[in-house]
Amino acid sequence: MRDVAIVGVGMTKWGELWEKALRDIYVETALLAMDDAGVDHIDSMYIGCMSSGLFVGQEHLASQLSDYLGVNPVPATRVESACASGGAALRTGFLDVASGMSDIVLVSGVEKMNDVSGGDATYALGTAADQEYECYNGITFPGLYAMMARAYMERYGMTREQLAHVAVKNHENGSKNPLAQFPMKVTVEQVMNSVMVAEPLRILDCSPITDGAAALILCPLEMAKKMGKHTPVKIAGSGHATGSIAYHGRDDLTTLEAVGRSGEMAYKMAGVGPGDIDAVEVHDCFTIAEILVIEALGLVEKGEGKSAAESGKTALGGPIPVNPSGGLKSKGHPVGATGVAQVVELTKQLWGECGERQVKGAKRVMAQNMGGSGGSSVVHILEVA
Amino acid sequence: MRDVAIVGVGMTKWGELWEKALRDIYVETALLAMDDAGVDHIDSMYIGCMSSGLFVGQEHLASQLSDYLGVNPVPATRVESACASGGAALRTGFLDVASGMSDIVLVSGVEKMNDVSGGDATYALGTAADQEYECYNGITFPGLYAMMARAYMERYGMTREQLAHVAVKNHENGSKNPLAQFPMKVTVEQVMNSVMVAEPLRILDCSPITDGAAALILCPLEMAKKMGKHTPVKIAGSGHATGSIAYHGRDDLTTLEAVGRSGEMAYKMAGVGPGDIDAVEVHDCFTIAEILVIEALGLVEKGEGKSAAESGKTALGGPIPVNPSGGLKSKGHPVGATGVAQVVELTKQLWGECGERQVKGAKRVMAQNMGGSGGSSVVHILEVA
Repeated sequence: MRDVAIVGVGMTKWGELWEKALRDIYVETALLAMDDAGVDHIDSMYIGCMSSGLFVGQEHLASQLSDYLGVNPVPATRVESACASGGAALRTGFLDVASGMSDIVLVSGVEKMNDVSGGDATYALGTAADQEYECYNGITFPGLYAMMARAYMERYGMTREQLAHVAVKNHENGSKNPLAQFPMKVTVEQVMNSVMVAEPLRILDCSPITDGAAALILCPLEMAKKMGKHTPVKIAGSGHATGSIAYHGRDDLTTLEAVGRSGEMAYKMAGVGPGDIDAVEVHDCFTIAEILVIEALGLVEKGEGKSAAESGKTALGGPIPVNPSGGLKSKGHPVGATGVAQVVELTKQLWGECGERQVKGAKRVMAQNMGGSGGSSVVHILEVA
Repeated sequence: MRDVAIVGVGMTKWGELWEKALRDIYVETALLAMDDAGVDHIDSMYIGCMSSGLFVGQEHLASQLSDYLGVNPVPATRVESACASGGAALRTGFLDVASGMSDIVLVSGVEKMNDVSGGDATYALGTAADQEYECYNGITFPGLYAMMARAYMERYGMTREQLAHVAVKNHENGSKNPLAQFPMKVTVEQVMNSVMVAEPLRILDCSPITDGAAALILCPLEMAKKMGKHTPVKIAGSGHATGSIAYHGRDDLTTLEAVGRSGEMAYKMAGVGPGDIDAVEVHDCFTIAEILVIEALGLVEKGEGKSAAESGKTALGGPIPVNPSGGLKSKGHPVGATGVAQVVELTKQLWGECGERQVKGAKRVMAQNMGGSGGSSVVHILEVA
């Protein structure tokens, strides 16, 4: 298996992009990444997208987007794993380069969620859960994560304020990210008094509905070393795991098993452990998710995640910075794009290009991208090569 | 890159499967393939599916299906390229084994098209075209292929009867396939007098709406040689290409450029040409499609595809049998499953397990799977190892 590196990244400001179509935001970020890498062609492309069918009435993005980017006939493939689609697309692109089939591969994530062509966004997002057994019986995504929060509060004595500290930290980081959808700072009081969505989760515990895209250029590490523009970032570990899609199918209601398994695979492949990681981007679709994920990845002990944001442990200057980009919470969460955007952020962290939100001296970083209520998870570990 | 082999296949009868859910038909065929290969575990899985979101209100199949198959936490990935989703899933699974990441990989295709949860099947299938520029302006899929048929008739003098001969041949082959949805034979007169769908295409020129799944087990060729149950079938060539998603974007209205490109890639990788192929399964979603595809693949000269079925050239006992399984026309076309089912058929042909529809002495065969009106195409060449 060939070693694989990231040599270019592209991302634009996320938000409610009413004036742009999915194909527009895709092409913008893809061209930024190609420019950043200094490449004038690609050998293949992968697109992470959760539900362009339900959101904008368009499947077959592989053909549409290779066409609009002007690169057909290159092989193009769309990869879907709900909100982990971006991470899964990166893993698939990684395998393409690792196998020797392709040299220069464009990996993108994209989602247009605001202009829903039929139905509504809640229904579309429900397709990430076991729709027939969960959502058709009345639960929504905030409801699923609210049950996790309640179960965790019950077992580990987490306070409502501790949840709020996750949002406060991520908005603090996001305020330093010019591409974030909601770059305003928030206080614990604002979170605690924001509109209730699904008890105990309030609107400021939830990631938003976002239009956005992000892109990466991969190539063999040996080729990357000769390209010279950026220090190559090696994909040192790639882990991917599945678990019960339905929340009621889990052995333990406060453990995200697929996250733990995907982390173990990535650590093993990279030959490192949780203590060797300098910064992480995790899938904080809700404040409780960040807490459960950092526990599952072994970054904090089980039951200790609740105080990580409150104590400053996961703050930008803390021992293990979590979501320096602002996370899904502040940066936004165009579902299929998130996993790629996490890696855009971390690559820029390794290049020292993050300005005010730079994690000083970051040499090895990790991205964790989750599908649904934890039914799938993808983890990548990146190192300065 | 490691050599990759197919060592097990699974498929059940296709049709209107009202009593079974998508997850049921997926699991049935996956278990058949695992049994056929004699394996008790898999290292990863890929699922080709076009639009489970629009058809059955469920995305995140990777998690749901690994869960219902009882194999989580294995990595699972859904791949989508409209009606070429199955072929794209096979290519992705191939890269996974070729790279050295996984040894035993389950590749499936599945689609449940009859019980549409919202909208209608015509709208869902329109997402394979450029929905905003084509279908929202009134065209349907039969309409797109009808324009191809008209353009081809105009340029090459094809008769309406010649189109009908494609359907007659494929139903003749399908009558020998116990898993086909429509295994009845049809006559030229029946095709010519069947209900008009989009002039000149009539209902018996069109592939049906189908529920169905199909599955394959891949592993490294070296491992396959030691498994002993079946003669390993080597994936000798894999080609994948994109073209203009919209029909109006093509340079030539009677040429499927992406099909030609994907064929060239596969021939080159396998080190063979059109004359070295003993049997093919091609994407005959409409009768005209088979004619254009066999020309694009170089199996007949440009403009000569029109008479290939009529003259018996592509019949079961002819010089180049096309669609021995009955093709999409007779076997059925559950869009995401088709590309995998083509390879199930061809693998069984190489194993000599096809009974009445066996192509005698088949040693090297080819599958061509198309997305939309030709916006993407995947070709695989298989050989007895």
